[in-house]
Amino acid sequence: MRVLGVDPGLERTGYGCVDLTIPAAPRLIEAGVIRLRRGRPLPQRLLELDRELGAIVLELGPDLVAVESLFSHVRHARTAILMGHARGVILLAAARAGLDLAELAPAEVKRAVAGRGNAVKVQMQAAVQAQLGLAAMPEPSDVADAIAVALCAGRRSAVPGRHRTPALVR
Amino acid sequence: MRVLGVDPGLERTGYGCVDLTIPAAPRLIEAGVIRLRRGRPLPQRLLELDRELGAIVLELGPDLVAVESLFSHVRHARTAILMGHARGVILLAAARAGLDLAELAPAEVKRAVAGRGNAVKVQMQAAVQAQLGLAAMPEPSDVADAIAVALCAGRRSAVPGRHRTPALVR
Repeated sequence: MRVLGVDPGLERTGYGCVDLTIPAAPRLIEAGVIRLRRGRPLPQRLLELDRELGAIVLELGPDLVAVESLFSHVRHARTAILMGHARGVILLAAARAGLDLAELAPAEVKRAVAGRGNAVKVQMQAAVQAQLGLAAMPEPSDVADAIAVALCAGRRSAVPGRHRTPALVR
Repeated sequence: MRVLGVDPGLERTGYGCVDLTIPAAPRLIEAGVIRLRRGRPLPQRLLELDRELGAIVLELGPDLVAVESLFSHVRHARTAILMGHARGVILLAAARAGLDLAELAPAEVKRAVAGRGNAVKVQMQAAVQAQLGLAAMPEPSDVADAIAVALCAGRRSAVPGRHRTPALVR
Protein backbone atom coordinates (compact mmCIF):
# COMPACT_ATOMS: atom_id res chain seq x y z
CA MET A 1 0.00 0.00 0.00
CA ARG A 2 1.19 3.46 -0.92
CA VAL A 3 0.11 6.54 1.00
CA LEU A 4 0.65 10.13 -0.08
CA GLY A 5 0.74 12.51 2.89
CA VAL A 6 0.17 16.19 2.19
CA ASP A 7 0.75 19.22 4.43
CA PRO A 8 -1.19 22.05 2.74
CA GLY A 9 0.02 25.61 2.52
CA LEU A 10 -0.14 28.52 0.12
CA GLU A 11 3.58 29.24 0.26
CA ARG A 12 4.71 25.66 0.31
CA THR A 13 2.85 22.36 0.47
CA GLY A 14 4.83 19.42 1.83
CA TYR A 15 4.29 15.96 0.40
CA GLY A 16 5.65 12.53 1.20
CA CYS A 17 4.83 9.19 -0.39
CA VAL A 18 5.42 6.07 1.68
CA ASP A 19 5.17 2.42 0.67
CA LEU A 20 3.77 0.20 3.43
CA THR A 21 3.63 -3.10 1.59
CA ILE A 22 5.51 -4.42 4.64
CA PRO A 23 3.80 -2.29 7.33
CA ALA A 24 6.62 -2.86 9.81
CA ALA A 25 9.21 -1.69 7.30
CA PRO A 26 7.85 1.43 5.59
CA ARG A 27 9.83 2.75 2.67
CA LEU A 28 9.97 6.35 1.45
CA ILE A 29 9.27 6.66 -2.26
CA GLU A 30 9.59 10.42 -2.62
CA ALA A 31 9.10 13.54 -0.56
CA GLY A 32 9.46 17.24 -1.06
CA VAL A 33 7.66 20.56 -1.21
CA ILE A 34 5.57 22.30 -3.83
CA ARG A 35 6.59 25.94 -3.64
CA LEU A 36 4.08 28.51 -4.85
CA ARG A 37 5.10 31.94 -6.08
CA ARG A 38 4.29 34.46 -3.36
CA GLY A 39 3.65 37.44 -5.57
CA ARG A 40 1.13 35.74 -7.81
CA PRO A 41 -2.63 36.05 -7.41
CA LEU A 42 -4.31 33.35 -5.34
CA PRO A 43 -6.12 31.65 -8.29
CA GLN A 44 -2.79 31.26 -10.13
CA ARG A 45 -1.13 29.77 -7.08
CA LEU A 46 -3.98 27.30 -6.66
CA LEU A 47 -3.65 26.39 -10.32
CA GLU A 48 0.08 25.70 -9.87
CA LEU A 49 -0.66 23.61 -6.77
CA ASP A 50 -3.32 21.65 -8.64
CA ARG A 51 -0.99 20.94 -11.55
CA GLU A 52 2.00 19.90 -9.44
CA LEU A 53 -0.12 17.73 -7.19
CA GLY A 54 -1.85 16.14 -10.17
CA ALA A 55 1.57 15.21 -11.59
CA ILE A 56 2.72 13.80 -8.23
CA VAL A 57 -0.40 11.64 -7.89
CA LEU A 58 -0.02 10.37 -11.44
CA GLU A 59 3.69 9.64 -11.04
CA LEU A 60 3.73 8.09 -7.57
CA GLY A 61 0.41 6.25 -7.82
CA PRO A 62 -0.73 6.32 -4.16
CA ASP A 63 -3.69 4.22 -2.96
CA LEU A 64 -4.63 6.75 -0.31
CA VAL A 65 -4.14 10.47 0.36
CA ALA A 66 -3.68 11.58 3.97
CA VAL A 67 -3.95 15.03 5.52
CA GLU A 68 -4.21 16.43 9.03
CA SER A 69 -7.76 17.04 10.17
CA LEU A 70 -9.13 20.53 10.35
CA PHE A 71 -9.37 21.42 14.00
CA SER A 72 -5.72 22.25 14.47
CA HIS A 73 -5.76 25.35 12.37
CA VAL A 74 -8.17 27.72 14.04
CA ARG A 75 -5.77 29.98 15.91
CA HIS A 76 -5.05 32.41 13.10
CA ALA A 77 -8.30 32.78 11.21
CA ARG A 78 -6.97 34.42 8.06
CA THR A 79 -4.06 32.00 7.68
CA ALA A 80 -6.44 29.13 8.36
CA ILE A 81 -8.91 30.24 5.71
CA LEU A 82 -6.12 30.67 3.17
CA MET A 83 -4.82 27.21 4.10
CA GLY A 84 -8.40 26.02 3.54
CA HIS A 85 -8.11 27.11 -0.09
CA ALA A 86 -5.01 24.92 -0.58
CA ARG A 87 -6.62 22.07 1.34
CA GLY A 88 -9.71 22.31 -0.87
CA VAL A 89 -7.56 21.95 -3.98
CA ILE A 90 -5.77 18.94 -2.46
CA LEU A 91 -9.02 17.20 -1.48
CA LEU A 92 -10.38 17.89 -4.94
CA ALA A 93 -7.27 16.35 -6.53
CA ALA A 94 -7.73 13.21 -4.40
CA ALA A 95 -11.41 12.93 -5.33
CA ARG A 96 -10.70 13.56 -9.00
CA ALA A 97 -8.15 10.73 -9.00
CA GLY A 98 -10.69 8.45 -7.28
CA LEU A 99 -8.49 8.11 -4.18
CA ASP A 100 -9.71 7.71 -0.62
CA LEU A 101 -8.82 10.42 1.85
CA ALA A 102 -7.68 9.84 5.43
CA GLU A 103 -7.94 12.73 7.88
CA LEU A 104 -5.92 12.40 11.08
CA ALA A 105 -5.77 14.60 14.15
CA PRO A 106 -2.32 16.25 14.48
CA ALA A 107 -1.89 14.87 18.02
CA GLU A 108 -2.61 11.35 16.77
CA VAL A 109 0.05 11.71 14.06
CA LYS A 110 2.59 13.03 16.57
CA ARG A 111 1.84 10.26 19.04
CA ALA A 112 2.05 7.55 16.39
CA VAL A 113 5.29 8.79 14.88
CA ALA A 114 7.22 10.52 17.67
CA GLY A 115 5.62 8.84 20.68
CA ARG A 116 4.05 11.98 22.13
CA GLY A 117 1.09 14.06 21.08
CA ASN A 118 2.90 17.34 21.69
CA ALA A 119 6.15 16.55 19.87
CA VAL A 120 7.88 19.63 18.42
CA LYS A 121 8.99 19.99 14.83
CA VAL A 122 12.55 18.76 15.25
CA GLN A 123 11.35 15.68 17.16
CA MET A 124 9.00 14.87 14.30
CA GLN A 125 11.79 15.33 11.78
CA ALA A 126 14.13 13.05 13.78
CA ALA A 127 11.43 10.40 14.27
CA VAL A 128 10.61 10.34 10.56
CA GLN A 129 14.32 10.07 9.71
CA ALA A 130 14.81 7.17 12.12
CA GLN A 131 11.70 5.21 11.12
CA LEU A 132 12.44 5.40 7.43
CA GLY A 133 16.21 5.03 7.75
CA LEU A 134 16.84 8.29 5.92
CA ALA A 135 20.28 9.77 5.36
CA ALA A 136 19.19 13.11 6.84
CA MET A 137 16.26 14.80 8.60
CA PRO A 138 13.56 15.86 6.15
CA GLU A 139 13.75 19.63 5.58
CA PRO A 140 11.78 21.87 5.76
CA SER A 141 9.55 20.54 8.54
CA ASP A 142 6.53 20.55 6.20
CA VAL A 143 8.12 17.56 4.46
CA ALA A 144 8.49 15.65 7.73
CA ASP A 145 4.87 16.49 8.63
CA ALA A 146 3.65 15.19 5.29
CA ILE A 147 5.63 11.95 5.63
CA ALA A 148 4.41 11.53 9.23
CA VAL A 149 0.73 11.81 8.30
CA ALA A 150 1.30 9.28 5.51
CA LEU A 151 3.01 6.84 7.90
CA CYS A 152 0.27 7.18 10.48
CA ALA A 153 -2.56 6.80 7.95
CA GLY A 154 -0.86 3.80 6.36
CA ARG A 155 -0.49 2.03 9.66
CA ARG A 156 -4.05 2.73 10.67
CA SER A 157 -5.39 1.24 7.47
CA ALA A 158 -2.86 -1.64 7.32
CA VAL A 159 -4.17 -5.08 6.44
CA PRO A 160 -5.43 -7.21 9.34
CA GLY A 161 -3.37 -10.16 10.63
CA ARG A 162 -0.19 -10.70 12.60
CA HIS A 163 2.43 -7.97 12.34
CA ARG A 164 5.57 -8.38 14.42
CA THR A 165 6.67 -5.13 16.02
CA PRO A 166 10.25 -4.71 14.84
CA ALA A 167 13.24 -3.82 17.03
CA LEU A 168 11.65 -5.08 20.26
CA VAL A 169 13.59 -8.37 20.37
CA ARG A 170 17.28 -8.10 19.64
CA MET B 1 -19.17 41.99 -20.73
CA ARG B 2 -20.41 39.01 -18.75
CA VAL B 3 -19.64 38.55 -15.08
CA LEU B 4 -20.23 35.40 -13.06
CA GLY B 5 -20.68 36.14 -9.37
CA VAL B 6 -20.21 33.28 -6.94
CA ASP B 7 -21.12 33.03 -3.25
CA PRO B 8 -19.14 30.01 -1.98
CA GLY B 9 -20.47 27.49 0.51
CA LEU B 10 -20.23 23.78 1.23
CA GLU B 11 -23.96 23.30 1.53
CA ARG B 12 -24.94 25.59 -1.28
CA THR B 13 -22.98 27.88 -3.53
CA GLY B 14 -24.95 30.73 -5.09
CA TYR B 15 -24.15 31.88 -8.62
CA GLY B 16 -25.43 34.63 -10.87
CA CYS B 17 -24.33 35.59 -14.35
CA VAL B 18 -24.97 39.16 -15.47
CA ASP B 19 -24.48 40.73 -18.89
CA LEU B 20 -23.24 44.30 -18.72
CA THR B 21 -22.81 45.02 -22.41
CA ILE B 22 -24.90 48.10 -21.64
CA PRO B 23 -23.53 48.89 -18.14
CA ALA B 24 -26.53 51.04 -17.26
CA ALA B 25 -28.93 48.27 -18.20
CA PRO B 26 -27.56 45.01 -16.76
CA ARG B 27 -29.32 41.85 -17.79
CA LEU B 28 -29.51 38.62 -15.81
CA ILE B 29 -28.47 35.60 -17.87
CA GLU B 30 -28.91 32.89 -15.26
CA ALA B 31 -28.74 32.50 -11.52
CA GLY B 32 -29.19 29.72 -9.03
CA VAL B 33 -27.53 27.55 -6.42
CA ILE B 34 -25.31 24.52 -6.57
CA ARG B 35 -26.49 22.30 -3.75
CA LEU B 36 -23.99 19.84 -2.33
CA ARG B 37 -25.04 16.66 -0.57
CA ARG B 38 -24.60 17.17 3.16
CA GLY B 39 -23.87 13.60 4.10
CA ARG B 40 -21.10 13.07 1.58
CA PRO B 41 -17.39 13.30 2.41
CA LEU B 42 -15.80 16.69 1.83
CA PRO B 43 -13.66 15.63 -1.19
CA GLN B 44 -16.78 14.32 -2.96
CA ARG B 45 -18.65 17.55 -2.31
CA LEU B 46 -15.74 19.56 -3.68
CA LEU B 47 -15.70 17.32 -6.74
CA GLU B 48 -19.44 17.96 -7.30
CA LEU B 49 -18.89 21.69 -6.87
CA ASP B 50 -15.99 21.63 -9.33
CA ARG B 51 -18.02 19.77 -11.94
CA GLU B 52 -21.13 21.92 -11.65
CA LEU B 53 -19.15 25.12 -11.69
CA GLY B 54 -17.09 23.94 -14.66
CA ALA B 55 -20.32 23.29 -16.56
CA ILE B 56 -21.71 26.72 -15.61
CA VAL B 57 -18.55 28.50 -16.79
CA LEU B 58 -18.56 26.57 -20.04
CA GLU B 59 -22.24 27.20 -20.68
CA LEU B 60 -22.55 30.84 -19.66
CA GLY B 61 -19.13 31.97 -20.92
CA PRO B 62 -18.33 34.79 -18.46
CA ASP B 63 -15.41 37.18 -19.04
CA LEU B 64 -14.82 37.62 -15.32
CA VAL B 65 -15.52 35.72 -12.10
CA ALA B 66 -16.35 37.76 -8.99
CA VAL B 67 -16.36 36.74 -5.32
CA GLU B 68 -16.47 38.56 -2.01
CA SER B 69 -13.07 39.17 -0.48
CA LEU B 70 -11.88 37.14 2.42
CA PHE B 71 -12.01 39.37 5.46
CA SER B 72 -15.70 39.07 6.08
CA HIS B 73 -15.61 35.46 7.10
CA VAL B 74 -13.46 35.31 10.20
CA ARG B 75 -16.10 35.22 12.89
CA HIS B 76 -16.68 31.47 12.91
CA ALA B 77 -13.29 29.93 12.29
CA ARG B 78 -14.39 26.42 11.41
CA THR B 79 -17.15 27.54 9.06
CA ALA B 80 -14.72 30.01 7.51
CA ILE B 81 -12.06 27.35 6.89
CA LEU B 82 -14.63 25.03 5.34
CA MET B 83 -15.86 27.90 3.17
CA GLY B 84 -12.19 28.37 2.23
CA HIS B 85 -12.23 24.88 0.71
CA ALA B 86 -15.16 25.78 -1.54
CA ARG B 87 -13.61 29.15 -2.36
CA GLY B 88 -10.35 27.43 -3.31
CA VAL B 89 -12.20 25.19 -5.75
CA ILE B 90 -13.99 28.22 -7.24
CA LEU B 91 -10.78 30.22 -7.67
CA LEU B 92 -9.13 27.19 -9.22
CA ALA B 93 -12.03 26.81 -11.69
CA ALA B 94 -11.63 30.47 -12.70
CA ALA B 95 -7.87 30.10 -13.17
CA ARG B 96 -8.27 26.86 -15.10
CA ALA B 97 -10.70 28.56 -17.48
CA GLY B 98 -8.23 31.45 -17.91
CA LEU B 99 -10.68 33.95 -16.39
CA ASP B 100 -9.78 36.98 -14.32
CA LEU B 101 -11.00 37.10 -10.76
CA ALA B 102 -12.44 40.16 -9.03
CA GLU B 103 -12.52 40.21 -5.23
CA LEU B 104 -14.80 42.78 -3.62
CA ALA B 105 -15.31 43.71 0.00
CA PRO B 106 -18.83 42.78 1.17
CA ALA B 107 -19.53 46.34 2.32
CA GLU B 108 -18.56 47.67 -1.12
CA VAL B 109 -20.97 45.25 -2.79
CA LYS B 110 -23.78 46.22 -0.41
CA ARG B 111 -23.15 49.92 -0.90
CA ALA B 112 -22.99 49.61 -4.68
CA VAL B 113 -26.15 47.53 -4.98
CA ALA B 114 -28.39 48.48 -2.06
CA GLY B 115 -27.00 51.94 -1.29
CA ARG B 116 -25.71 51.09 2.19
CA GLY B 117 -22.73 49.07 3.37
CA ASN B 118 -24.72 47.35 6.11
CA ALA B 119 -27.76 46.34 4.05
CA VAL B 120 -29.48 43.19 5.34
CA LYS B 121 -30.28 40.16 3.24
CA VAL B 122 -33.82 41.11 2.23
CA GLN B 123 -32.67 44.61 1.21
CA MET B 124 -30.03 43.04 -1.03
CA GLN B 125 -32.62 40.70 -2.52
CA ALA B 126 -35.01 43.59 -3.20
CA ALA B 127 -32.25 45.78 -4.70
CA VAL B 128 -31.12 42.99 -7.02
CA GLN B 129 -34.71 42.36 -8.09
CA ALA B 130 -35.29 46.05 -8.82
CA GLN B 131 -32.04 46.65 -10.69
CA LEU B 132 -32.43 43.68 -12.97
CA GLY B 133 -36.21 44.01 -13.37
CA LEU B 134 -36.80 40.48 -12.10
CA ALA B 135 -40.26 38.97 -11.61
CA ALA B 136 -39.44 38.02 -8.01
CA MET B 137 -36.75 38.41 -5.36
CA PRO B 138 -33.89 35.96 -5.87
CA GLU B 139 -34.17 33.09 -3.36
CA PRO B 140 -32.30 31.89 -1.35
CA SER B 141 -30.30 34.96 -0.40
CA ASP B 142 -27.08 33.29 -1.61
CA VAL B 143 -28.39 33.80 -5.15
CA ALA B 144 -28.96 37.53 -4.56
CA ASP B 145 -25.48 37.82 -3.02
CA ALA B 146 -23.91 36.15 -6.04
CA ILE B 147 -25.77 38.40 -8.47
CA ALA B 148 -24.87 41.47 -6.39
CA VAL B 149 -21.14 40.75 -6.45
CA ALA B 150 -21.35 40.20 -10.22
CA LEU B 151 -23.17 43.52 -10.71
CA CYS B 152 -20.68 45.40 -8.56
CA ALA B 153 -17.62 43.84 -10.22
CA GLY B 154 -19.03 44.45 -13.68
CA ARG B 155 -19.65 48.10 -12.96
CA ARG B 156 -16.22 48.58 -11.46
CA SER B 157 -14.53 47.15 -14.52
CA ALA B 158 -16.91 48.73 -17.03
CA VAL B 159 -15.44 50.37 -20.09
CA PRO B 160 -14.48 54.04 -19.73
CA GLY B 161 -16.63 56.79 -21.25
CA ARG B 162 -20.01 58.37 -20.57
CA HIS B 163 -22.57 56.21 -18.82
CA ARG B 164 -25.88 57.77 -17.96
CA THR B 165 -27.12 56.73 -14.51
CA PRO B 166 -30.59 55.30 -15.18
CA ALA B 167 -33.77 56.08 -13.24
CA LEU B 168 -32.56 59.47 -12.00
CA VAL B 169 -34.53 61.48 -14.55
CA ARG B 170 -38.12 60.40 -15.07
